[in-house]
Amino acid sequence: MSELFSFPKVAFVGNQSLQAGDGYHYYNADEVVAGKKMSEWLKFSVAYWHTMDQRLTDPFGEGTATRPWDIEGDPNTMAAALAKVDYLFEFLDKTGIEYFAFHDRDLAPEGKTLAETNANLDQVIDKIEQKMQETGKKLLWNTSSLFTNRRFLAGGATTPFAEVFAYAAGQIKHSLDIAKRLGSESYVFWGGREGYDFLVNTDTKRELDHIAAFFKLAKNYADEIGYTGQFLIEPKPKEPTQHQYDFDAQTTIAFLKTYGLEDTFKLNLEGNHAYLGGHTYEHEVRFAREAGLLGSLDANMGDKLTGWDIDEFPNDVYEATLVMYEFLKNGGLPTGGLNFDSKPRRQSFEFEDLFYAHIAGMDTYAAGLKVANKLIEDQVIENILKDRYASFDSGIGADFEAGKVTLKDLAAYAENKTDDEINATLQSGRQEQIKSTLNNYIFSVLGR
Amino acid sequence: MSELFSFPKVAFVGNQSLQAGDGYHYYNADEVVAGKKMSEWLKFSVAYWHTMDQRLTDPFGEGTATRPWDIEGDPNTMAAALAKVDYLFEFLDKTGIEYFAFHDRDLAPEGKTLAETNANLDQVIDKIEQKMQETGKKLLWNTSSLFTNRRFLAGGATTPFAEVFAYAAGQIKHSLDIAKRLGSESYVFWGGREGYDFLVNTDTKRELDHIAAFFKLAKNYADEIGYTGQFLIEPKPKEPTQHQYDFDAQTTIAFLKTYGLEDTFKLNLEGNHAYLGGHTYEHEVRFAREAGLLGSLDANMGDKLTGWDIDEFPNDVYEATLVMYEFLKNGGLPTGGLNFDSKPRRQSFEFEDLFYAHIAGMDTYAAGLKVANKLIEDQVIENILKDRYASFDSGIGADFEAGKVTLKDLAAYAENKTDDEINATLQSGRQEQIKSTLNNYIFSVLGR
Amino acid sequence: MSELFSFPKVAFVGNQSLQAGDGYHYYNADEVVAGKKMSEWLKFSVAYWHTMDQRLTDPFGEGTATRPWDIEGDPNTMAAALAKVDYLFEFLDKTGIEYFAFHDRDLAPEGKTLAETNANLDQVIDKIEQKMQETGKKLLWNTSSLFTNRRFLAGGATTPFAEVFAYAAGQIKHSLDIAKRLGSESYVFWGGREGYDFLVNTDTKRELDHIAAFFKLAKNYADEIGYTGQFLIEPKPKEPTQHQYDFDAQTTIAFLKTYGLEDTFKLNLEGNHAYLGGHTYEHEVRFAREAGLLGSLDANMGDKLTGWDIDEFPNDVYEATLVMYEFLKNGGLPTGGLNFDSKPRRQSFEFEDLFYAHIAGMDTYAAGLKVANKLIEDQVIENILKDRYASFDSGIGADFEAGKVTLKDLAAYAENKTDDEINATLQSGRQEQIKSTLNNYIFSVLGR
Amino acid sequence: MSELFSFPKVAFVGNQSLQAGDGYHYYNADEVVAGKKMSEWLKFSVAYWHTMDQRLTDPFGEGTATRPWDIEGDPNTMAAALAKVDYLFEFLDKTGIEYFAFHDRDLAPEGKTLAETNANLDQVIDKIEQKMQETGKKLLWNTSSLFTNRRFLAGGATTPFAEVFAYAAGQIKHSLDIAKRLGSESYVFWGGREGYDFLVNTDTKRELDHIAAFFKLAKNYADEIGYTGQFLIEPKPKEPTQHQYDFDAQTTIAFLKTYGLEDTFKLNLEGNHAYLGGHTYEHEVRFAREAGLLGSLDANMGDKLTGWDIDEFPNDVYEATLVMYEFLKNGGLPTGGLNFDSKPRRQSFEFEDLFYAHIAGMDTYAAGLKVANKLIEDQVIENILKDRYASFDSGIGADFEAGKVTLKDLAAYAENKTDDEINATLQSGRQEQIKSTLNNYIFSVLGR
Repeated sequence: MSELFSFPKVAFVGNQSLQAGDGYHYYNADEVVAGKKMSEWLKFSVAYWHTMDQRLTDPFGEGTATRPWDIEGDPNTMAAALAKVDYLFEFLDKTGIEYFAFHDRDLAPEGKTLAETNANLDQVIDKIEQKMQETGKKLLWNTSSLFTNRRFLAGGATTPFAEVFAYAAGQIKHSLDIAKRLGSESYVFWGGREGYDFLVNTDTKRELDHIAAFFKLAKNYADEIGYTGQFLIEPKPKEPTQHQYDFDAQTTIAFLKTYGLEDTFKLNLEGNHAYLGGHTYEHEVRFAREAGLLGSLDANMGDKLTGWDIDEFPNDVYEATLVMYEFLKNGGLPTGGLNFDSKPRRQSFEFEDLFYAHIAGMDTYAAGLKVANKLIEDQVIENILKDRYASFDSGIGADFEAGKVTLKDLAAYAENKTDDEINATLQSGRQEQIKSTLNNYIFSVLGR
Repeated sequence: MSELFSFPKVAFVGNQSLQAGDGYHYYNADEVVAGKKMSEWLKFSVAYWHTMDQRLTDPFGEGTATRPWDIEGDPNTMAAALAKVDYLFEFLDKTGIEYFAFHDRDLAPEGKTLAETNANLDQVIDKIEQKMQETGKKLLWNTSSLFTNRRFLAGGATTPFAEVFAYAAGQIKHSLDIAKRLGSESYVFWGGREGYDFLVNTDTKRELDHIAAFFKLAKNYADEIGYTGQFLIEPKPKEPTQHQYDFDAQTTIAFLKTYGLEDTFKLNLEGNHAYLGGHTYEHEVRFAREAGLLGSLDANMGDKLTGWDIDEFPNDVYEATLVMYEFLKNGGLPTGGLNFDSKPRRQSFEFEDLFYAHIAGMDTYAAGLKVANKLIEDQVIENILKDRYASFDSGIGADFEAGKVTLKDLAAYAENKTDDEINATLQSGRQEQIKSTLNNYIFSVLGR
Repeated sequence: MSELFSFPKVAFVGNQSLQAGDGYHYYNADEVVAGKKMSEWLKFSVAYWHTMDQRLTDPFGEGTATRPWDIEGDPNTMAAALAKVDYLFEFLDKTGIEYFAFHDRDLAPEGKTLAETNANLDQVIDKIEQKMQETGKKLLWNTSSLFTNRRFLAGGATTPFAEVFAYAAGQIKHSLDIAKRLGSESYVFWGGREGYDFLVNTDTKRELDHIAAFFKLAKNYADEIGYTGQFLIEPKPKEPTQHQYDFDAQTTIAFLKTYGLEDTFKLNLEGNHAYLGGHTYEHEVRFAREAGLLGSLDANMGDKLTGWDIDEFPNDVYEATLVMYEFLKNGGLPTGGLNFDSKPRRQSFEFEDLFYAHIAGMDTYAAGLKVANKLIEDQVIENILKDRYASFDSGIGADFEAGKVTLKDLAAYAENKTDDEINATLQSGRQEQIKSTLNNYIFSVLGR
Repeated sequence: MSELFSFPKVAFVGNQSLQAGDGYHYYNADEVVAGKKMSEWLKFSVAYWHTMDQRLTDPFGEGTATRPWDIEGDPNTMAAALAKVDYLFEFLDKTGIEYFAFHDRDLAPEGKTLAETNANLDQVIDKIEQKMQETGKKLLWNTSSLFTNRRFLAGGATTPFAEVFAYAAGQIKHSLDIAKRLGSESYVFWGGREGYDFLVNTDTKRELDHIAAFFKLAKNYADEIGYTGQFLIEPKPKEPTQHQYDFDAQTTIAFLKTYGLEDTFKLNLEGNHAYLGGHTYEHEVRFAREAGLLGSLDANMGDKLTGWDIDEFPNDVYEATLVMYEFLKNGGLPTGGLNFDSKPRRQSFEFEDLFYAHIAGMDTYAAGLKVANKLIEDQVIENILKDRYASFDSGIGADFEAGKVTLKDLAAYAENKTDDEINATLQSGRQEQIKSTLNNYIFSVLGR
């Protein structure tokens, strides 16, 4: 195969070599951490919409990106769409990334009807399927864009307009067919337009009833065609819609439980979305994990002083460590991975920047994995928790946990204790000490 | 009865008279709106902790408030605690407010043991009970402070320390006894310390298991003593705790459903808490209402540019109108009311300001009620929704709602429609026009 | 003249007629308020980029707008650009708006060189000039887009790339020529790309030195050609650039004073930008006014719970009242006006919505003007301030203001006063009462 | 000297010893970095109000702290105030911290008049002076609390009440006497109550005129008594006051320049205040430095998801590195230092936590210093900037910088360049690569 592009020199510090996975990087596919190769834990994925399609536009300016595939001509043609597939697989090959992810509309131009659009899409899917077989690369997840086209201005599954709703259903059907065909590990629903811009003109109850029923129809269809990938919902509080129904992990859990969908779906979480909802990324991952609903992760980073989704490639090792701790506690992500829902900054417009960015992201999560693994090996957090909650392992605490006491029993137990007796049982939370410990683990594990 | 204080001159514009409820005010207890007297709809309540106890301190300064009851001496004595009850009832009398609300610790100083503390409290409760009988004033809700005392530094029902947990249980038992005795319409749980300051040192799952079991013990005890008031949870995202478990309405709903508590609890919502969670107040009220879980409301106002709870008395008629719309759609609040969880600004330190503030708050919600009622009489919003969702009232939309179609059917229906056909069914959301309509309703209904 | 489009039915409540300015609206061009016609106070302006060009795209979706001028074909042609001018003037005519504003790049497509681009632009300017003469409509301000084109990815006047800098200078020169030719009342600089995305790769001092020198070159050129319109800077904290140099009014004032530009520039302020910087709109207007630097206003509205610029048409009468109070205290805006830097919501995609939106905006500021005028007529705020600061009108306060005392004198004066003596001079700030007064003024003045 | 308390075991990872400055810590007083001992660069300071006085209260709960000096009895007595001085100096001794800082009111209880209060304070100052002579410990800065006492509810230097203003002046006079006596390196003004809670009842112009004149009186007095320490203003946007006049660095610079005070004052900056104003800490430090106004730094950390000042001890090495980069570029802080305006979390209530926290803070900034120094040694950022702005070092760019060109010249230069020619001069900003480089420097320098 002739090369479409050469691999740029990726030099961060000193004379390190060009390839992710060598000694100067934290990501090393074959290095064993916690009993598995890094490449088995960290199922990194390239996001088609960002890496292949994103021109680095923003609401105030045109695109800045320069890409090798610009030579393929008008990107809204089938020829360019088909050509781009080769570039994707070469990019996967040269970065050593094993997975990718896409929306249906990332891949091919739309036609005048859904049938035409599906036909366009299928040509590209044919080529992708063939390249997957040739290369062994895999589809982490696919999804359907029910937000870009004008028709979805008021939502796809929650639109007030039945014709649009039917169209959305048709689009999902085709996407599930693709998921089945390409063996997608998961299937994602992100409700970018499912919510409201203006509460007064929105029948929120009717819309939520619709989307719940829509999800059930989708699940029935998946069962019918034998697609067994994991269904995922990706929460986000706002943007583009003023208020999205899937605000955060807990809101999504409330929705799933309200409509009896908690066995059908897990969550696909993202750090930047977490911030916009007022949470840390590790918060969202923790609560999804403990609910048994942690499905997959978006590997990106936001800016807590910025009020919108910036989808920056991750390089914050503090955050990566805490997220990877939850990840390891979850036994990794059996049907999910770490999708780079990330784009270079608008000023990082060269193709080369895509390499820097992906490799930096891989190294960041590999660094997080290594630190988290060491923390777990040393049982640092486990021991803190064991000591801190010890009073519930015996005596009145254990009796309570065992369901042996009533409110009256507890009251009788407490009523004549003095303040001094009770206060003597309080322990410091040691937050400053623990944060120092985390710093020390990070620098010990990652130093060289 | 001799007067403890004289009613201050409350003059807003022109020559209006002194009393809430006269012609220049929006609140008029006896005026009939939507088939009921305003006083029946709007069960306003004075918050003991703010109106009677709050010295208008802030984290950087000592209290500024001057109050008639300052002459009663050291507020941490039983004598002062008992004296203050008279002032409360005179304040209720002179403002025409029918309800009040309190935390256990608002009322009486603590003793050296819970038993002593309960005894102190009971003396005040005796007096309150007597004054209630004399005056007909009612208890909207009571609650227990599991957050002020040092022992609750890591929570009450979610503390890692079993002795503290037992103490909290004892305290709740006593509060439920009081609720029963005084006929409290609801019983509120606000988990100000139930959450985490630092995720790393917190066993969130174990803590949530604890609080859910705690709530069940409380409910069992209420059943045992025959207390039939509504149990309420008051969501707040943070402050004092870095992250509280009851972040917002939806998070609380997720919790209730996870632990099978959705038939035991409803929600007590607050505007300022909504903002801190990234929501409007009407959002929180809408989603609680549609979940069948709207219990009671805090009547206050925040500042969306301020990152903490300011508990300002409400005067935003836009917000009050939208909240009262949801309120009327809910049929009011059968077991709840509008509690002024509000305090005057620190510079509004005079006793007189308490009158201005409560009357302003009453007028604001009365204004909101009148505008919302007129909107409903004219079916303004109902007609907007009826038109907007009409495509689901017949044809494919109705078939979908009736459960008659599969994903495949919808796909087949949509596949060969042209974009033009589909786009022709889209309707403008008319947000600007509707907001003008709301302005016009407000000025038409409230103008004089 | 044949009509390009018919005026839509604008009906808000009841049977009001179609035209802004009739009895049911607050804006009435000929009504005299504070000694002048409303139309003389309120120099409303249509923003070309929003009203004529904005397709209602967002970062996640394509445009939704339908406009009468869509029939003119590809908007990137000169033919469409020229045709659109007629629609603008018909829109101004039918809404009764007297002013408009534009960026150079709103009007005509770019050529391959600046010279070609200027030639394209000049054709449209020729037509605009002719229509202005025919209709009497006026240019409130013009500006140059140094942010949309890819070349400005790192700024225009603060770009690190000298070729781009020279281009930006050339563009400004041509815009000043246009300002002179069309008699633009002001000339605006909005530094959307003047700032940094990443502090580490930015030489902030060198960039600020550049832009200050750039402004001086521009002023010299304006003087040379005899353009006497007011130069304005429009502050915004961020978006598109992560951090913009003109963060808010005060930051811009610091910049102007640092570089000796405070006599050259005034400020063009916007409510939504204020929120993004953590301020209310009235705050920004107050501080610009008191610095003698209030130049012009953008008439729009943001959402304090949303972290980006939404440019909603204004309908908040509370805010409009406080802004109009500052406006009247400033004697209006001699060289500025109220430019609708506002767009309909994405779901308000019909042309009709543009009418609703502009008329709602005009009414909102007219309402604010009427309430603010009545407040001033009654000297409500003036009397509050007079009483509150009275202790500086005589005695030690007056001596201090007159510069007659030293720190030692003040200390000697205070040292032996008791706390009680000093505390007795404190007065309540009466915030709750004053807010009620504002509510009462709003409903009294606007009610009907 | 007998010991008041024993040094707690400070063990973060493994078998490290107890003392800050040993091999396992980043802070080592005698280690030479950038040509000076760490202890000469990093003038750490203990904040009296936090470390000695703070009970770890919050707005919803009583204090949790336990301190060795609790045995000295009622903290509001002179005896306890005097005793506490010994504990401070022992804490300085055992942590190896050389500086401290205080507000006047941190040290001694108030009397009934300012004269009495001054007398109380002077007794404590006598003892502090003696201990300073004995130990060689130094006063980094002192300040006056014009915000805690009720009398300052509407400000000190901006109060509307002349009696309070005179009192504030008297208080400052005494604080300047103390600064002179103790050789305080700087004197700080933090205007916690200088601003407004409610714009409508505030004469902002008159208040700003007052405070500017007040500052001049203070400077005159300092000159009179020969106090030559640096005057500092500490910006903060809000909290306790809704809006403070010294919002951020730039706002304060605008104020200083407006009133001709820019040669009298420098800035004392804080990270948490920066966040509340929408900025990073390094942003504030950069802009103060480039204005020649960087005076001193508060060493603390906030939480960008939390809307108030949390004053956490610093442990974020990313932030410390970028702040220390600016610090080194400034040549350190000749008249300032790194004051721990920080407190342990409320759950870290033990005395031991104060040690962990201070040592963690010292290590964090020492780590930052080491990484920043290595970056400068390698000229990493300098080379990035040199390349990036190279086009202004020759040709048209250099001509512009030299003031040799007009706007017309630049326009003539640019007018006939093609887009391709101009675009070819753009360079990638390389943000992702540079962030990776920073990560690599951090882990290389700090690893062990």
